[in-house]
Amino acid sequence: MKRFGALEAGGTKMVCAVGDETGRILDRVSLPTLTPAETMPAMIDYFRDKGISALGIGCFGPVDLNRASPTYGYITSTPKLSWQNYPIVEKFREALGIPVGFDTDVNAAALGEATWGCTRDVQNSIYITVGTGVGVGVIIDGKPYHGMMHPEGGHVLLNRHPDDPMVGSGCPFHDNCMEGLAAGPSLEKRWGVKGAELSGRKEVWELEAYYIGQAIVDYMMVLSPERIILGGGVTHQECLLPMVRREVEKQLGGYLRCPALENLDTYIVPVSLNDNQGAMGAIKLAMEELGVYN
Amino acid sequence: MKRFGALEAGGTKMVCAVGDETGRILDRVSLPTLTPAETMPAMIDYFRDKGISALGIGCFGPVDLNRASPTYGYITSTPKLSWQNYPIVEKFREALGIPVGFDTDVNAAALGEATWGCTRDVQNSIYITVGTGVGVGVIIDGKPYHGMMHPEGGHVLLNRHPDDPMVGSGCPFHDNCMEGLAAGPSLEKRWGVKGAELSGRKEVWELEAYYIGQAIVDYMMVLSPERIILGGGVTHQECLLPMVRREVEKQLGGYLRCPALENLDTYIVPVSLNDNQGAMGAIKLAMEELGVYN
Repeated sequence: MKRFGALEAGGTKMVCAVGDETGRILDRVSLPTLTPAETMPAMIDYFRDKGISALGIGCFGPVDLNRASPTYGYITSTPKLSWQNYPIVEKFREALGIPVGFDTDVNAAALGEATWGCTRDVQNSIYITVGTGVGVGVIIDGKPYHGMMHPEGGHVLLNRHPDDPMVGSGCPFHDNCMEGLAAGPSLEKRWGVKGAELSGRKEVWELEAYYIGQAIVDYMMVLSPERIILGGGVTHQECLLPMVRREVEKQLGGYLRCPALENLDTYIVPVSLNDNQGAMGAIKLAMEELGVYN
Repeated sequence: MKRFGALEAGGTKMVCAVGDETGRILDRVSLPTLTPAETMPAMIDYFRDKGISALGIGCFGPVDLNRASPTYGYITSTPKLSWQNYPIVEKFREALGIPVGFDTDVNAAALGEATWGCTRDVQNSIYITVGTGVGVGVIIDGKPYHGMMHPEGGHVLLNRHPDDPMVGSGCPFHDNCMEGLAAGPSLEKRWGVKGAELSGRKEVWELEAYYIGQAIVDYMMVLSPERIILGGGVTHQECLLPMVRREVEKQLGGYLRCPALENLDTYIVPVSLNDNQGAMGAIKLAMEELGVYN
């Protein structure tokens, strides 16, 4: 059975893994994200002797996914300056001499779930991660959707709750976007304490569910997905998912009628791949780049 | 050259037309939308002797577009009671004995523009109509996108402007959705006068541009379209489109960087087919149903 390399390229760590055509992860290391000059050789060393047929990368962004563009496969205007305008795909292709598949980190996670996880039985789904930032991976007809660039669903503009005590938002670009109101750093800014101290406070999670629920209504109106996965560090708070479902129901206002929406417990679901969805999606990207379609 | 029937099925009128494979409209009539018992025979009479090879319908909704569903081709929970749960596709197919293509009214208009109009050079676009209601047709990979049901982009939830004098909204389901804040009836409710009297009032169109611009930012974040068409009765107000572009730029906050966004004049554009886009899209639906792909 062929083996594939998977890279989850993040702003703080680089998770390198090897897996097979069934999505099974055979090996994995995590490296800190330093400069390209420091981190690229270490990653290349890891992948070089693993007998992989192709590499897939789910990458922090923004990235250029347009194959017709001269900067395809580049990390573009990231605030991590040493990675700005960095041709990550080309560098790996040159160093390893194998095909390199490429997509955003959230699209890779969405693809992992859509290939081997809880959305494998539907064609159109979204994967939302609420953590340090908010990202939305969009699967249409079984494939990651890009459009002109790639969706940036974390920056939909929301209606601020009148009782929200936060001044401004956590997003430098938008006063009222989803990421600025609901990502982890925004919670800490709003309540003035570390995330770990927020766990038992009902008002914290009610407001959080209000924003996540509102964003989900927007995604439903625009994309009409068949299922929605909600993941990311903030969602480790166990009380949150049921509260989000209640908010979605409330804010939909009875407008959409569809059998799948009669039970939101099976419509808005947690991740199913034990946080392997990103690496597994990257394996799938590698397989597709090699032309090994499942 | 083959001829095709086109039906723009609306809540107040039914526009029946005949066209050819190039999208040219050869004939057209408009009938009032009464009950099915009254209006269906009149439409069938119109199409019966026109020598058409297939019929395409762009229909008011909600409708069932899922070909695997037992109610495929039905108008479903419309407030127009006599058309509720009406199998419009089946009735035409039985009466005319030809293939019948079917989609929402906004998807048909989006498809008309994407086939013969101002989005024919891109693969992913959206068509927004702001009139009696707000609808969003979504084209992905050149085809109308449905997802689980069909997008209902008119009901994205917006941040209400603090100076908005309207109490409540024009939507019975949502206090702050795009349709409830920006459709024609909402304007009349907000300002207390008929639409025709609003034309010269700057504050009216500034607020309207604020809502339309905000919704467009949301569509851009979720769908990343390559171009956006803005149509519908409300947009006949000529000052509006430039104001909408300015609002989009302002509310994007410099977040998305892409060559196509450097000039919003060519990114957010008016309809290009002289309000034939719905009929022409219906012709395309008929052609596709017959298997005559352009």
